Amino acid sequence: MLVLGVDPGSLVTGYGLVRKEDKRLIYGGGGKISFPHPCPFSERVHRIFGSLVEIIQAHHPDEMSIEDIFFAKNVKSALKIGHVRGAALVAAIQCGLKVFEYTPLQIKQSVVGYGRASKDQVRAMVKLILNLDIQLSLDTADALAIAICHHNWVRLEDTLDV
Amino acid sequence: MLVLGVDPGSLVTGYGLVRKEDKRLIYGGGGKISFPHPCPFSERVHRIFGSLVEIIQAHHPDEMSIEDIFFAKNVKSALKIGHVRGAALVAAIQCGLKVFEYTPLQIKQSVVGYGRASKDQVRAMVKLILNLDIQLSLDTADALAIAICHHNWVRLEDTLDV
Repeated sequence: MLVLGVDPGSLVTGYGLVRKEDKRLIYGGGGKISFPHPCPFSERVHRIFGSLVEIIQAHHPDEMSIEDIFFAKNVKSALKIGHVRGAALVAAIQCGLKVFEYTPLQIKQSVVGYGRASKDQVRAMVKLILNLDIQLSLDTADALAIAICHHNWVRLEDTLDV
Repeated sequence: MLVLGVDPGSLVTGYGLVRKEDKRLIYGGGGKISFPHPCPFSERVHRIFGSLVEIIQAHHPDEMSIEDIFFAKNVKSALKIGHVRGAALVAAIQCGLKVFEYTPLQIKQSVVGYGRASKDQVRAMVKLILNLDIQLSLDTADALAIAICHHNWVRLEDTLDV
């Protein structure tokens, strides 16, 4: 199963693809969705939608996982991140993908083992888990962590079903 | 010119079409985007996108105007309304529509004449302006007000250009 992880952000949105084969997690690509400067906010939101649709059509992931957000610094930040998540959800559902949402706590616990891990620790563990020897931006690493979290969660559910 | 006004809301999203012909504003339709119960939030966001795309494809508006939101009761409300606005912006831009944003103050001033008008006052003025003798929900009336506001704004800009 190939999972597309998305780390939504109004300035940078990271994405990462993780495949599971024979119980091994394999890196399937990743990067950041960026914008020309200057780029009006509504255009950024649309570019996130368009870029995710392109990524989905190019890689054919089976499912998408995305960070669930309950908190933000303030109302203005919450409005912005809401727009980005809205665009990402629409892209996924429009392409027929089922969407799974995980809190930052669940993601960090799943990847590093405890919920208060730093972004650097998350990146280091993502590289270890995926056996990666390439440079990873923090945003791409976060997106890969979200995809790994979904694989682990699904595995856990499978185990519970047995 | 036909304008699609959108009043974004996570429970109810109103839409309204207003055409301008020979300096007269004419009602072109309107209603509310609703959901089956229960409907998960991500599915609601996608339905708002899908419904707006259908409305745009059915009526071919020239431009879309939408309420700009800077404030919300709290972070949770801001996140929700952000998702809805994100879905609406993506629908419009995806269909090639230019999007114009107006604050609640601009909309009320444009339709009623002062910025602290009640929703009932907005509805009454919308019915007067469009010469409507039908029942209008508050959400549809708000969406029509947003479309009227854009027509008035464009007219003002035209006047300034002369």
